[in-house]
Amino acid sequence: MIVIPLGTASAMPTKKRHLPALAVTAGAATVLFDCGEGTQLRMMQAGVNHTRVKAIFITHLHGDHYFGLLGLLSTMMLASRQCPLTIVAPNQLEDFLDGLPTVFDMTFTIRHVGLPENFSSGLVFETDGFTVEACALDHRVFAVGYRLEEKRRPGNLDVEAARALGVTEFVHFRALKRGHRVVLHSGNMVTPDAVLTKSPLPRSMAYVTDTRPCAGSKHLARQASLVYHEATFGDAFEERAQETGHSTARQAAAVARSSGAKRLLLGHFSARYADAQPLVNEAREVFPQTEAAVELQRYEI
Amino acid sequence: MIVIPLGTASAMPTKKRHLPALAVTAGAATVLFDCGEGTQLRMMQAGVNHTRVKAIFITHLHGDHYFGLLGLLSTMMLASRQCPLTIVAPNQLEDFLDGLPTVFDMTFTIRHVGLPENFSSGLVFETDGFTVEACALDHRVFAVGYRLEEKRRPGNLDVEAARALGVTEFVHFRALKRGHRVVLHSGNMVTPDAVLTKSPLPRSMAYVTDTRPCAGSKHLARQASLVYHEATFGDAFEERAQETGHSTARQAAAVARSSGAKRLLLGHFSARYADAQPLVNEAREVFPQTEAAVELQRYEI
Repeated sequence: MIVIPLGTASAMPTKKRHLPALAVTAGAATVLFDCGEGTQLRMMQAGVNHTRVKAIFITHLHGDHYFGLLGLLSTMMLASRQCPLTIVAPNQLEDFLDGLPTVFDMTFTIRHVGLPENFSSGLVFETDGFTVEACALDHRVFAVGYRLEEKRRPGNLDVEAARALGVTEFVHFRALKRGHRVVLHSGNMVTPDAVLTKSPLPRSMAYVTDTRPCAGSKHLARQASLVYHEATFGDAFEERAQETGHSTARQAAAVARSSGAKRLLLGHFSARYADAQPLVNEAREVFPQTEAAVELQRYEI
Repeated sequence: MIVIPLGTASAMPTKKRHLPALAVTAGAATVLFDCGEGTQLRMMQAGVNHTRVKAIFITHLHGDHYFGLLGLLSTMMLASRQCPLTIVAPNQLEDFLDGLPTVFDMTFTIRHVGLPENFSSGLVFETDGFTVEACALDHRVFAVGYRLEEKRRPGNLDVEAARALGVTEFVHFRALKRGHRVVLHSGNMVTPDAVLTKSPLPRSMAYVTDTRPCAGSKHLARQASLVYHEATFGDAFEERAQETGHSTARQAAAVARSSGAKRLLLGHFSARYADAQPLVNEAREVFPQTEAAVELQRYEI
């Protein structure tokens, strides 16, 4: 699983930081979380191919988090995309897209998954390889965070152990690998438990922005391999964070720690922080496995 | 007058070319022609301050020419802009902006100048220093081009000539410089004609995209100091240019030549041309004073 932050600015871009978007590639599918202005350009710069994007998850309808949808959808259409695209977002987004003048001769289907304002949490997207869950957060307007989690994979096949139990045929090896029990020609039954190593823990990734610290953020971050969490402000602006519906870096770290997450990437920095290191330092006092997200860097989980 | 191309791509951006926008600074005012996605970022990179932007002129409502408005207006609002902003565009744009969800707690007034589909030509904006005229073009959808022209300035004061006619006082020099006649204490009258050099020809700049060659483009380009003209295609795709409502580089050059323009900048290149030089070469056969617009370069008129 590869996570690439495409933009780590908050409301306004700076010369060095772009508007919010984050790409996650898991297996053959790429998904985007948020899609600020310029996302299609950042994707090109990051080598993220728009044809592989299966779904886009929008956290809330402040422009810095979704204005890039328009250009990206246009480009998909101009490239004659055929594959359907899922867009999960607060309900109002669909009206907005429907209201665009003269733009979209759609070549593909958009599956809108609209979240109503009373939405609390639930599964919103699923592929063969992973699920995405949404959960309401606590911002100035209705906002949700997301959690992408791999489906549990069967363990590795211990070929020697299988042979020792009399397995010789390819179809039996394959069935065992897939978690099915088999009956050999000898009449003996072999169960997958006997020949599979323990399943690896599913990898997971939480995307939590924009929000005050809340139950929803902790729920999304539970035991996550990686949490991308907003850190709009530092300690000195904790009151302002509360007023504007944001988190400080230290609060993000507290969410990561209390939810048992493995690693924390901070982003969504206020333009006042030309250097994010002071925010990282504050967060590390609470949760040492913290870094500032670097745009276009590939984080492997 | 400074002209800065911010984006020279056509429908889709490339790694090197951004979506259409062009900034012109004349005196204290900056205006934008088109505002593709990412324009606010390109402005930062070019050193064009959004607080100085007095007006934005949109040619037509294909997304690549206006999706950047959303982010730019948001940033102006977040920066607590007070100064009114004029937006000149086809009528439908206003409905689109009005339909934005939860975005705009406007801190400033937008003066919409909506152009109806039967618009042909006319003055659409004016400052103390210049006028902007719009003229219908010939694209797949209703589209207009623009011409910015300085107001005629009085000539320079020939101080020696004025002294020779008996002028000695500052108020009289100033009045003559401003084009007024004065009566001296001696009773003699001095007229500005006698002491001012000839007015310099007003500088002018035409922005012509997206269009087939047409009467409107020639009208806008008449005697212009600089014409920025689309050159989406080269000779080999002349038929495709016609079908899609665009111009070839050679056709742009023919417009510049027949309208008596001084200089031609080509832009709005199809992504198929990684290098625009072949387009420039074709155009120079017709109009030698042709260059490919370079993004973020400052062209002085």
